[in-house]
Amino acid sequence: MARIVMKFGGTSVADVAKIRNVAQHVKREVTAGHQVAVVVSAMAGTTDRLVQWTREAARVHDAREYDAVVSSGEQITSGLLAITLQGMGIPARSWQGWQVPVRTDGSHGRARIVAVEADELGRRLDQGEVAVVAGFQGISPDNRITTLGRGGSDTSAVALAAALNARCDIYTDVDGVYTSDPHIVSRARKLDRISYEEMLEMASLGAKVLQTRAVEMAMIQRVPLQVRSSFEPPDAPNQATVDGFGPGTLVCDEEDIVEKQIVSGIAYSKDEAKVTLIRVVDKPGVAARVFGPLADANINVDMIVQNVSEDGKTTDLTFTVPHGDLDRAIEVIEQAQDEIGYHRLVSSTDVVKISVIGIGMRSHAGVAARMFQVLGERGINIQAITTSEIKISILIDAAYTELALRTLHSAYDLDA
Amino acid sequence: MARIVMKFGGTSVADVAKIRNVAQHVKREVTAGHQVAVVVSAMAGTTDRLVQWTREAARVHDAREYDAVVSSGEQITSGLLAITLQGMGIPARSWQGWQVPVRTDGSHGRARIVAVEADELGRRLDQGEVAVVAGFQGISPDNRITTLGRGGSDTSAVALAAALNARCDIYTDVDGVYTSDPHIVSRARKLDRISYEEMLEMASLGAKVLQTRAVEMAMIQRVPLQVRSSFEPPDAPNQATVDGFGPGTLVCDEEDIVEKQIVSGIAYSKDEAKVTLIRVVDKPGVAARVFGPLADANINVDMIVQNVSEDGKTTDLTFTVPHGDLDRAIEVIEQAQDEIGYHRLVSSTDVVKISVIGIGMRSHAGVAARMFQVLGERGINIQAITTSEIKISILIDAAYTELALRTLHSAYDLDA
Repeated sequence: MARIVMKFGGTSVADVAKIRNVAQHVKREVTAGHQVAVVVSAMAGTTDRLVQWTREAARVHDAREYDAVVSSGEQITSGLLAITLQGMGIPARSWQGWQVPVRTDGSHGRARIVAVEADELGRRLDQGEVAVVAGFQGISPDNRITTLGRGGSDTSAVALAAALNARCDIYTDVDGVYTSDPHIVSRARKLDRISYEEMLEMASLGAKVLQTRAVEMAMIQRVPLQVRSSFEPPDAPNQATVDGFGPGTLVCDEEDIVEKQIVSGIAYSKDEAKVTLIRVVDKPGVAARVFGPLADANINVDMIVQNVSEDGKTTDLTFTVPHGDLDRAIEVIEQAQDEIGYHRLVSSTDVVKISVIGIGMRSHAGVAARMFQVLGERGINIQAITTSEIKISILIDAAYTELALRTLHSAYDLDA
Repeated sequence: MARIVMKFGGTSVADVAKIRNVAQHVKREVTAGHQVAVVVSAMAGTTDRLVQWTREAARVHDAREYDAVVSSGEQITSGLLAITLQGMGIPARSWQGWQVPVRTDGSHGRARIVAVEADELGRRLDQGEVAVVAGFQGISPDNRITTLGRGGSDTSAVALAAALNARCDIYTDVDGVYTSDPHIVSRARKLDRISYEEMLEMASLGAKVLQTRAVEMAMIQRVPLQVRSSFEPPDAPNQATVDGFGPGTLVCDEEDIVEKQIVSGIAYSKDEAKVTLIRVVDKPGVAARVFGPLADANINVDMIVQNVSEDGKTTDLTFTVPHGDLDRAIEVIEQAQDEIGYHRLVSSTDVVKISVIGIGMRSHAGVAARMFQVLGERGINIQAITTSEIKISILIDAAYTELALRTLHSAYDLDA
């Protein structure tokens, strides 16, 4: 007997038939004797429609009212799933964020969970009732509905699991975390286990399986997290591994991974734009003059490359910003042109960031060298590089995305 | 400066453009210096869709979950209207039932309001903020969302007006209460004033302008109620009458109506079904044997006619029940056939109830006589009669509906 939080995303609850399928998954766990809390997203498309209405209502809108409108999507799903479970003879009730309560700060539209006071909910789990919790929402200190930002239901689920001392199963439309995007790398393999740290890098780099904040919270609170598919047959035998986990990917502590791979996965992100300042006056403080104004404008700069100055007077400076911030970044830089002192600004969005991720890198040299070598053999030019303890990221021409992913996937022996 | 509760129904908030129109009505009152609380229904069609989903989810559903799902419609509208008002520079915030709070009993799906604790809301009105309150919903003693039953937003509005010491303007898709249905009686006139008692009879008899419970509550709490159209131009001059009321129909105390009409209106209801028991054994206690089982089955019997027994042994007994209860009523009666002792049961739904309503009847004789006379002249056969202090209702063949309405409308000098 275990406590489980099961989380189902929008595509898994897109209509009443799919909600019935979700109920079958819940039934399987209840029948196995587990205590189950379910966290649900809004039915696919609902949130988009609600957001659209708030935009039509006024150009600028009060985030508190946005939250009141948008949170209704999860409210609907929670009630419908509770009704469906009851119809199958399983005691269940819905819980809105304010009913649990899930206490958040007052940052409407992107609130952070402060505490989940799940005592009453836990008591009802003990009595055999399934809790169906509206994800994505909470309540602010002044009694208003808050939402956690897009994808926030993952975070709701992890926070609830932490409060209930439960494990957390995230059901989604893929059956786990892969070594790379299977749509591009046909030989990509599903990972049985991945460490929180690796998953964090994967998530923040565009592998859209789990929300970054949810992984962070799971890591800090040590919540065992499993990613699996809601579209596999709910009544299929649960191919539990030794520790009771099922057929998806387990996101866990590094120590729980026995066979550590040097490289666990190859991720990519197209959400990058490259800016190059040609012939920047090369004197102390130039970086501050460029990146200070960008920081003030709340624009995240990711990769930075400064060429060696040939004449000792000027240099070319390249950096990347999120795609959506490019126009604003250019505006900020151009306004500061006199202060910075550069000849010309060129930008491009035809770039992709490819990242090689693995906790094994900590103890293995030569991972980067191998990367540069195999890409060089393929004639792929590396435009920028950043590294962290468990990750090497490079910026390349977007046209080479598929080639680079497949090449690296083979080079690090990840092919199925 | 007055406090006003403005209530807008589903067709008045059917889309974002219509919500903007509602905001213009609110702006007019705010500009005039009034404190405004707005009660909104769900966007037209929303509640039906939500109800449909709950039905698809399970054949029998928990009313508490039904309420969680269905109340989301009003939640959406309240947020959207608050955003729209803010976009027009009017301070506003949304209030869900549980936030006000609107306390109800635990009868989910048809809860009754116990108390509206509007102190905080009132303070914010004093500070110049418009309150946008989700109608139709409240909170039960055990912290669950309740709904008040279809049309319950009228009741929300009246209850809030009572708590705030405000008058209550009900905006709908007609511009007031008419002497009869204008779609049938082209010479029907809009009434400037109507008493609570008359409005109650009108409402319960099928004039669908106001919910019966809302009128009852307004009468008990002495809330001045006005019915007006949301589709007249919001910026048109408010043709205020002496007491500050606008161009609709004022529902008020009898004493506030100076020129009392003998008859104020002619209503009709097609929600009637007629049952006749042929040759019932005519002995004491027969009525109890027929109507006891119907009462036990929670079926409301409205009109009852018992013919004079010709042979002193048997009689024919006719009564009416709501359309939707006919099948069940027949079942109940047929099961008790031996006990009741009748020869044959015949039923018909081709009947209509026509009612003549007016507080002036109390002091005027001859109203009923005139009714029977003019209908007789037209060859319309009266199948049953019931009367109250301010109302005479008759049951006739549905084919004569229009003729009877127009004939009576003229006979009582109501024609425009």
